[in-house]
Amino acid sequence: MGTAEEIRTVLDGRWEEVRQEVRSRLDPETFAPPLSTLPLDEHRQRTLQAVLELTQTDFARNGLTEEQGGTNEHGASVTAFEMLGHADLSVFVKAGVQFGLFGGAIANLGTKRHWDAYLPGMLDGSLLGSFAMTELGHGSDVQSLLTTATYVPETDEIEIHSPGIAARKDYIGNAARDARMAAVFAQLVVDGENHGVHCVLVPIRDEHGNPLDGVTIGDCGAKMGLRGVDNGELTFDHVRVPRLNLLNRYGTIDDDGRYHSPIENPSRRFFTMLGTLVRGRISVAGGAGAATRTALTLAVIYGLHRTQFHTPDGESEVRILDYRGHQRKLLPRLARSFALMLAQNALVEQMHRIAAGEESSEDAQRELEARAAGIKALTTEHATDTIQVCREACGGAGYMSVNRFADLKADTDVFSTFEGDNTVLLQLVAKGMLTEYKDAFHELDTRGAFFFGARQVTEAVIERTIGGSLIQRLVSGSPGRDGDDALTDRGGQLDLFEDREKHLLETLAMRLRRAGEEGADGFAIFNDAQPHLLLTARAHIERVVLEAFVAAIDGMPDGESREIMERVCDLYVMSTIEAERAWFVEHGRLSAQQSKSVIVAVDTLCAGLRPHAQTLVDAFAIPLAWRETNLMEFLGEAGPDA
Amino acid sequence: MGTAEEIRTVLDGRWEEVRQEVRSRLDPETFAPPLSTLPLDEHRQRTLQAVLELTQTDFARNGLTEEQGGTNEHGASVTAFEMLGHADLSVFVKAGVQFGLFGGAIANLGTKRHWDAYLPGMLDGSLLGSFAMTELGHGSDVQSLLTTATYVPETDEIEIHSPGIAARKDYIGNAARDARMAAVFAQLVVDGENHGVHCVLVPIRDEHGNPLDGVTIGDCGAKMGLRGVDNGELTFDHVRVPRLNLLNRYGTIDDDGRYHSPIENPSRRFFTMLGTLVRGRISVAGGAGAATRTALTLAVIYGLHRTQFHTPDGESEVRILDYRGHQRKLLPRLARSFALMLAQNALVEQMHRIAAGEESSEDAQRELEARAAGIKALTTEHATDTIQVCREACGGAGYMSVNRFADLKADTDVFSTFEGDNTVLLQLVAKGMLTEYKDAFHELDTRGAFFFGARQVTEAVIERTIGGSLIQRLVSGSPGRDGDDALTDRGGQLDLFEDREKHLLETLAMRLRRAGEEGADGFAIFNDAQPHLLLTARAHIERVVLEAFVAAIDGMPDGESREIMERVCDLYVMSTIEAERAWFVEHGRLSAQQSKSVIVAVDTLCAGLRPHAQTLVDAFAIPLAWRETNLMEFLGEAGPDA
Repeated sequence: MGTAEEIRTVLDGRWEEVRQEVRSRLDPETFAPPLSTLPLDEHRQRTLQAVLELTQTDFARNGLTEEQGGTNEHGASVTAFEMLGHADLSVFVKAGVQFGLFGGAIANLGTKRHWDAYLPGMLDGSLLGSFAMTELGHGSDVQSLLTTATYVPETDEIEIHSPGIAARKDYIGNAARDARMAAVFAQLVVDGENHGVHCVLVPIRDEHGNPLDGVTIGDCGAKMGLRGVDNGELTFDHVRVPRLNLLNRYGTIDDDGRYHSPIENPSRRFFTMLGTLVRGRISVAGGAGAATRTALTLAVIYGLHRTQFHTPDGESEVRILDYRGHQRKLLPRLARSFALMLAQNALVEQMHRIAAGEESSEDAQRELEARAAGIKALTTEHATDTIQVCREACGGAGYMSVNRFADLKADTDVFSTFEGDNTVLLQLVAKGMLTEYKDAFHELDTRGAFFFGARQVTEAVIERTIGGSLIQRLVSGSPGRDGDDALTDRGGQLDLFEDREKHLLETLAMRLRRAGEEGADGFAIFNDAQPHLLLTARAHIERVVLEAFVAAIDGMPDGESREIMERVCDLYVMSTIEAERAWFVEHGRLSAQQSKSVIVAVDTLCAGLRPHAQTLVDAFAIPLAWRETNLMEFLGEAGPDA
Repeated sequence: MGTAEEIRTVLDGRWEEVRQEVRSRLDPETFAPPLSTLPLDEHRQRTLQAVLELTQTDFARNGLTEEQGGTNEHGASVTAFEMLGHADLSVFVKAGVQFGLFGGAIANLGTKRHWDAYLPGMLDGSLLGSFAMTELGHGSDVQSLLTTATYVPETDEIEIHSPGIAARKDYIGNAARDARMAAVFAQLVVDGENHGVHCVLVPIRDEHGNPLDGVTIGDCGAKMGLRGVDNGELTFDHVRVPRLNLLNRYGTIDDDGRYHSPIENPSRRFFTMLGTLVRGRISVAGGAGAATRTALTLAVIYGLHRTQFHTPDGESEVRILDYRGHQRKLLPRLARSFALMLAQNALVEQMHRIAAGEESSEDAQRELEARAAGIKALTTEHATDTIQVCREACGGAGYMSVNRFADLKADTDVFSTFEGDNTVLLQLVAKGMLTEYKDAFHELDTRGAFFFGARQVTEAVIERTIGGSLIQRLVSGSPGRDGDDALTDRGGQLDLFEDREKHLLETLAMRLRRAGEEGADGFAIFNDAQPHLLLTARAHIERVVLEAFVAAIDGMPDGESREIMERVCDLYVMSTIEAERAWFVEHGRLSAQQSKSVIVAVDTLCAGLRPHAQTLVDAFAIPLAWRETNLMEFLGEAGPDA
């Protein structure tokens, strides 16, 4: 096995076979990315067709338990969909709506009667559905949705109603054209009492595709990207559905018209329900990562062949990836893509263990949700940044639609704000950290104990789920912060990331503690601390990502492949520290001299990895059919890379 | 006059009247941005129509001297085109190709015979033209173009030829559909000798629009944006044109078939020719700035009205621009837009003085070119970054085409790599700085003198063209680097920016000096220093931008408007330092404590400017017709801002 192959198997992870099957099996004609020059209707039709083709695969069925008619192979399911992110992102998203969101709502919020009635149609495409959560007035603040689902005892029905334009369901995928049914999130009112947001299955179109009585469907029309996805608007005017259409796993109305829930606290119930939908967020991160790898593959290969300007001796033209500035654009981002992919793999494994019933605890679920939120935020942000830089790295050629960056950019752009706005998600991560911190801290009520115990508490809070004992060993064996090689030793690097997270969390908790004091302006204190809070979440996720990288390398045998991966990991670490080095110096973690040495280290690592650039993108193993361009139309005078 | 009006007049600058005329005069039907959902052909036709309408204005004629049939109002011309950047960017670019690039080549590289023969048709639209410089094989490296223009004494003609695919003229605006003639850049060969790149006018289509013999025209087809611009490819197969079609201001072939040039050195001649085309680069920066202001206007107003999540007391929903995180996304970028606009105004004035003959020296021209390159790089980079953030700040609504961000992003994206790739431009800036530094340093050959004199030399090299004496006074009066208010005092801030530039330049010069040493690997030394070199250029341009801001405020009377502008300037300064604060600490310019205080200062300035956010975007005075969206379809429960 060559070096690229060896690295590919590490990146492919536990579901390598699934990835290999998708690479070889999906028909390029149907799944290769079309140019967005197709007329909108044709693009939508083509996308629907591809989604229907997917019903011939096991992708979606693998994501259901046996009781739901599936195979309980959740990780395989998510991995297969992730691979679609290399191909056509409209198909990726529309399939995500059908199988992940609509299907996921039925599977996770419904009970056996819903599984039996609707999952077969969801799987074979005979029942196309939407996931109607977001409203015009409330996107991120799902708890404040305005749509109501009122139980009508007289007819044993539930009445869905949109009170005003702010209640209009908006940007709903599959709604403008194809969906026959929608999983509608609404305030459930029983006997005059509001039990909070629940999900109800509402038919929206008849078999001819016409809106049903009381349902008004709008078309969001042209979007920046994802043109193959028919996003629409849904408004309900006192639409009645049978009581049994309530997805009633976490809240039900009994035959006597009384509301029951296994979770007493309405807020806890709400967050439990949302939490079961975490897979959508994980999938978006996966698709964003895949699209980013496509862009990097194109730009790196272009940079290896394109020449521009002569060497000082005038003898030959320089390949642009030989320029340090160009290396600095692409290689640290390539390293970060490796890191995020390995973290994503670990996240999918974690999700799989819980979904398959191999692991089950509230803590594990809570941690999964936080990591999914954080990795989704960082991966989609990385996608936007990196695809942009890759486009620019290909100059005018990068601007032509035929070379893919136009669609890659436009399609992934919305990933940073859908399935959870990234800023809101990072807040969620930080709030979770604060809750744990508070839980672990029993003596919070006396100031003295607070200061005394802070560090021990964070020690307990910092969890090392991925490769826990390995990481512990590395950190313990590190030369310590003042050692000369603190920055180059893996344990020292881990310690640096972890120490930063702890410090940020401790000081954040201290700041926010004031909000509880007598007469304090809670909003003002929280608001002033918001940048600090967001930084804490980032530091946490960077640490989790690094741990995943270290754990993945640990499984590799010694040799060239491992050596290269160690350098890629170094580049991820050093470029991450470089971007935040001001913080490390401000807080006495790095001296000014060490801080400068980080810049030099990034340069050196870029130069050292330059000869392996082709190997690194080969390891992504993206089928040629999914990355056809005319970027290689003219290779430059230097010809193919040596 | 209200506050917004007062600030508008400062931002509008010397050509305020021109801006006001454009705001009120351009027909919204023709110039309002169309959605990119128009079929490609219709979009191109609409764009051509708008460009033809512009022939009814003075925009282009103002950019020519009286001898060329113009009015010598160069600044007014560039300012009017800049305003088009608020409207339809395809029109902006296509007009730029016709009047700026094609017309500019004739005006600046041609002589009276070309002006008389072609400028009237260029102005009235009867002669549509292209600017055929870029080739598939060589974009940034214009000096290495492959197309040849060979003098044929037998018939007194010039033969244009494309030797191979790398020589194909590519991405040429106006070429795919409309141009009848192209200004073709090619290696001029006379009597077997290559005199370097010159420009020749070559007819490419007959009156029916069919390609002429020997001319092959391709269509670049779909692009990421600028769909109204018909970019194409031109290949020449031994195409002959009369000798007099050579634009011969800087190099001519006499009646005896001999080559003459007023500039002996071929490289100097080449750069002089390119230098005269600086206006295109200035215009791109102007258009990028305008588009950015449109995006900021939309996102800020949305943030002022859109509510999401409740206050802790649960009483009302929070306007999203009240969140510190949201303020930090938009307000520092708003401040930077102010800074860059004022720097752009100063740049246009400088260009105008030289073009109108009010000022003329090689130094002034060289400085203009460097500033144009630097401000173009920073302004277009700012556009890409800011429009993206504005899109995200509007969530799902920002993704809908009707809300403009899709086209604003896609249209401006290429600005960072056309009219000079930003990285190449920043290198150009730094190289200019190094040349000056070397020129000023006479004792460069002895190591001792080098160290001794370095600081004095940079003092001489740092030029303060904008508001020179004012800046000098402020810097001299500053409390000094160690004073408590070094960071808040304007003179102290200027000193900080200037000191950084000096240090970067001195150390860069020292690094590169080694390249000249015996046996040194020149490319390796240059390449290792490339990030340092790019940083030096950035530091220089940031200083120039700050000086322009300070000079613009200096003209304002005391009062609320000035007070607000001072705070906007502070925010520009503090957020710029914040992003680079690691450098300041690493080099002993800021203590760790001061560095932290910069973060707090940005937070405080954001909070302080939040109440003036509406005023600040009102000061951009972008006509409503050019920024129509449905973002205000639902304002949120809070209703209009107080």
